[in-house]
Amino acid sequence: MGKYLSNISLEEGLQKYLSVLELDRVRESEIIDVEDALNRRSSEAIYANLSAPFYNCSAMDGIAVKAENTFTANEQNIIMLKEGRDYIVVDTGDPIPKQFDAVIMVEDLLERNEESVKIYKPAIPWQHIRSLGEDVVEKEMIIPSYHTIRPQDIGAMISAKVDKVKVFKEFKVGIIPTGTELIDRHKEPEIGDIIEFNSRLFEGLILEYEGKPKRYPIVEDNYEKIKSSIIEALNECDMVLVNAGSSQGREDFTYDIINEIGEVCIHGLAIKPGKPAILGYINNKPVIGIPGYPVSAWVVMENIVKPVLRTLINKNISSRKKIEAILSKRIMSTLKYEEFVRVKLSFIDGKYVATPIKRGAGTITTLVNADGIIRIPQNVEGIEEGEVVDIELLKDIREIENTIVSIGSHDIVMDIINDEIINKSRGKIHLSSTHVGSFQGLLSVKKHENHIAPIHLFDVEEENYNIPYIKKYLNEDVALIKLVKRTQGLLVKKGNPLNIKSIKDISKSRYINRQKGSGTRILFDYLLKKDGIKKNEINGYEREEFTHMSLAKAIQNDDADCGLGVYSAAHIFDLDFIPICEEEYDLLFRQSDLSTEYIDYLLKIIKDDSFIQKVNELGGYNTENMGEVVCIE
Amino acid sequence: MGKYLSNISLEEGLQKYLSVLELDRVRESEIIDVEDALNRRSSEAIYANLSAPFYNCSAMDGIAVKAENTFTANEQNIIMLKEGRDYIVVDTGDPIPKQFDAVIMVEDLLERNEESVKIYKPAIPWQHIRSLGEDVVEKEMIIPSYHTIRPQDIGAMISAKVDKVKVFKEFKVGIIPTGTELIDRHKEPEIGDIIEFNSRLFEGLILEYEGKPKRYPIVEDNYEKIKSSIIEALNECDMVLVNAGSSQGREDFTYDIINEIGEVCIHGLAIKPGKPAILGYINNKPVIGIPGYPVSAWVVMENIVKPVLRTLINKNISSRKKIEAILSKRIMSTLKYEEFVRVKLSFIDGKYVATPIKRGAGTITTLVNADGIIRIPQNVEGIEEGEVVDIELLKDIREIENTIVSIGSHDIVMDIINDEIINKSRGKIHLSSTHVGSFQGLLSVKKHENHIAPIHLFDVEEENYNIPYIKKYLNEDVALIKLVKRTQGLLVKKGNPLNIKSIKDISKSRYINRQKGSGTRILFDYLLKKDGIKKNEINGYEREEFTHMSLAKAIQNDDADCGLGVYSAAHIFDLDFIPICEEEYDLLFRQSDLSTEYIDYLLKIIKDDSFIQKVNELGGYNTENMGEVVCIE
Repeated sequence: MGKYLSNISLEEGLQKYLSVLELDRVRESEIIDVEDALNRRSSEAIYANLSAPFYNCSAMDGIAVKAENTFTANEQNIIMLKEGRDYIVVDTGDPIPKQFDAVIMVEDLLERNEESVKIYKPAIPWQHIRSLGEDVVEKEMIIPSYHTIRPQDIGAMISAKVDKVKVFKEFKVGIIPTGTELIDRHKEPEIGDIIEFNSRLFEGLILEYEGKPKRYPIVEDNYEKIKSSIIEALNECDMVLVNAGSSQGREDFTYDIINEIGEVCIHGLAIKPGKPAILGYINNKPVIGIPGYPVSAWVVMENIVKPVLRTLINKNISSRKKIEAILSKRIMSTLKYEEFVRVKLSFIDGKYVATPIKRGAGTITTLVNADGIIRIPQNVEGIEEGEVVDIELLKDIREIENTIVSIGSHDIVMDIINDEIINKSRGKIHLSSTHVGSFQGLLSVKKHENHIAPIHLFDVEEENYNIPYIKKYLNEDVALIKLVKRTQGLLVKKGNPLNIKSIKDISKSRYINRQKGSGTRILFDYLLKKDGIKKNEINGYEREEFTHMSLAKAIQNDDADCGLGVYSAAHIFDLDFIPICEEEYDLLFRQSDLSTEYIDYLLKIIKDDSFIQKVNELGGYNTENMGEVVCIE
Repeated sequence: MGKYLSNISLEEGLQKYLSVLELDRVRESEIIDVEDALNRRSSEAIYANLSAPFYNCSAMDGIAVKAENTFTANEQNIIMLKEGRDYIVVDTGDPIPKQFDAVIMVEDLLERNEESVKIYKPAIPWQHIRSLGEDVVEKEMIIPSYHTIRPQDIGAMISAKVDKVKVFKEFKVGIIPTGTELIDRHKEPEIGDIIEFNSRLFEGLILEYEGKPKRYPIVEDNYEKIKSSIIEALNECDMVLVNAGSSQGREDFTYDIINEIGEVCIHGLAIKPGKPAILGYINNKPVIGIPGYPVSAWVVMENIVKPVLRTLINKNISSRKKIEAILSKRIMSTLKYEEFVRVKLSFIDGKYVATPIKRGAGTITTLVNADGIIRIPQNVEGIEEGEVVDIELLKDIREIENTIVSIGSHDIVMDIINDEIINKSRGKIHLSSTHVGSFQGLLSVKKHENHIAPIHLFDVEEENYNIPYIKKYLNEDVALIKLVKRTQGLLVKKGNPLNIKSIKDISKSRYINRQKGSGTRILFDYLLKKDGIKKNEINGYEREEFTHMSLAKAIQNDDADCGLGVYSAAHIFDLDFIPICEEEYDLLFRQSDLSTEYIDYLLKIIKDDSFIQKVNELGGYNTENMGEVVCIE
């Protein structure tokens, strides 16, 4: 009953939760050595133990004198002073003995020998002396309470002989991974196991939020075992995160445990992903149940755990940087939830363009690949293409601005280009590749979403690559960088057990296809038609993979027998390869970019011998015309 | 000869230095555990060792089936499937055995018992299956080279069974403090010693710049000893900083040492403070001589060391945040240098106002107190009051926006208010106090530079406090918060050895005065006049201190015998106190701020019993009317 999920908005839920947690909370302090205080926060004001300087000292190179002994000096009455009796020599910083009260600069001394000097003007009392406490006076406050200690603060404290400082204790966050299927990363995984990694994701995020993470061992799905792990963590930490088991399934115990020994404040938030979060507390310490899918977990970490932690440690929340971008594709959204959509960003013609990426909450790599996040409010049905949206950044904006954006077909050659660009530029220029197939890539060029589109589009009527498609679909002047001629063929298991020799033989196999719009799919359909084979004769025609790599892996794993793809993928997964035809794989771009730094750089990389060698090593590529630029008007 | 300082501009100097250092530099890599990789930078691309998921698994709770066994099912043809033979039960995430190729959701099962289910529609092959490699395929690139590793990257790597990663080695920066007068902070300082703290300042800054600092022991001013310390540091580090000894004095050896075993690129930059910096290299490793004064050192760290380090580690330089502010006071600047001026910031009426603070390069506390830095370019004579200036921030802008700015007179009560405000608001509201004396404080209110001005201005003609001054100098409607009546008196050494009883007696002593414009100075001048004493009869009339604390400390240290000040300062430094009169110490503010959060908060604090008690404990204050607001029109 209690497990029915509510659908409270993020804002309201967070406010409700914080109002419960914040009451009369007292943060503990500890006394630490001043050298360990960097980035810690003072819990009481810090006072100087010693003045700085703690003695009167000379501000100049010169001599220390008693001012009243010089009062009669003037140009008509040159006075001679005797060393030891009337003065001593001082350098900048030297202490001024009690019997003296002024310094005369070396430049103002008329004659000087071992034992005496002559002066021609009087010294004013205390001239050129840095007096005791000029920087800070003993017992003065140096640092107030609630101050985050910076390098200069440590310097000032040490100069004032402060040895120990009282700071707020670090805010410890316990992280408990739960799930019978989870195994530690050091174990050899078997079918059915999931390598536990969320706790490491959380650990890094808690450090970012300026908390102190503590990971606990994996606990299997057992009520009592999870309960005692939570109790252990509560004894040692200021806040506990329980990962997975936050929903209302059979094996989801977090709700009941918090409910038994504490209180659940909220179960279920109107956010997507991340809905089945539990916001509870035990002994006034927050205990948060976090969903298991990594992207859901990440959304809850960023939008619940971060503000809770920052509120409880009384620090300003530093939000992720934001920019405005133009949305390149319509996003549909449900009215029921606030949605968090991951996007790739391109910096095209001085504007940021955001392209949504897939929304599955189970794929941690989408968080790796995403450049930013769009929040779509609850009660909004979606956002139209071309609208300006706010993006929370996941990468440094300068990295995004220095990224060549490739949207189009996938080939392993593109990965090599990526690595060459980044290494040769020493990390200054990046390449971002999104694999949507050749045809979508061509449309991306039309819509100015990308800098380049790798394409291999076979025109059935003209029986020619790329140019017929460009002429049909693009109005703008574009150009092609000729990349490779690559061999497409059938990938089959090692030893070719089904003895497949051509397209005609595949009907006896379990086929695996590429997605609609990909050049390989267009080619496959053409090959079928040419041989008079119907699509419904192909067992597996509907099963789509998005890359040559995933297609090859599925065959290696015996989930399929056969698929159309490139030699390099067959080679990587040790499959047999039956060549079918050679196709032209080129990079499409707008002519207006022709002399940009990006295209120049790309051409430089592509024409480089080391790159050509690496491509040839992959096998299955012809690099003859590589780097030629063909303008199409 | 070589020690003649050049005056090359910062920009030109840095460029010249970097062009020498950057040539063919190869950064070393190391292989570390993936868990230690947070914030490190990949030095080569990282590939998946295992697909994620690495087996086909169910995307739903339901049953795994062989799709072809379900093809005939429809509403007219309900099919019964037998457990074990035709299906197995699967939860989300469970592996799909080889003999099955689709999942039917639990919601689509018609009848279900221990041994069988009924279905009414066919399963499409591979429906509701998360296929092997959906997130990432084995051997695919997860992270490119030159990527700064984030929490989500660690998650993705662990999920793909990546155990070790190759990253660039940390960039080690050796820090060598030199100077015979320097002592370690743990030693008891004696007259003539300077507690070494710059190396700790540098350590913190290097961490901020994402380098790895290593401090070396203090070296006395000895050519051979400094040289061997530099050689030792060069063996262990990628860059060496030598602190002090960078100028052209007798004991300044850094130039000659670099010149002997390496090359000096630049000695002397057109910056103030920070001019006598040395930019050199030994074995292609940068060795930088940094001036000894902490503010000079800081300027060189920020403007030379930081960009050098960031260039050599190939990272984007993240600059300090900048804002625009209105300059409240004219700044004069020399044409010869680029100047770095520390400022306090106020957030008044929605605008930032910058007020320069003192420019001495020797006072580390000015870096503690400064909110930001203005850079005045070379060839600019100064900036006029009212001009808009760019400020590099040294504090979080939100802290500045939540700060009550007090400019005016100094009293220890203001320190207590500060501590009460910050503690009661749990660090949300701050008070910043600048001590310029009552009269300057009053003018600051007029110029809208501050929120409040503590004042105690005695009008000689009306023989009354504050209100006559306000009426004379301010046109705007203002108000006073009545704070304390405080006793002013003469501070003398313990036991009153000179037997001073009143102002009339001070001519026999060494007097120490307060600065012009301070309320205490105005009072002192009035008292002298009343007793018919001439200023030139007072020995020490010209010696000015800026606070009661520094005045009291000077008397305690026997640098003076007597000064006018408040009881609390005498009490803190265990001095005797001869009461002279009671004066009114109030807080002046603009009536337009009357109902602002700040004034409300201030009044709440001032009227609080705990505050009243703390003030009474100091002694010498009358808190009778404390918290009363008097409007003056």
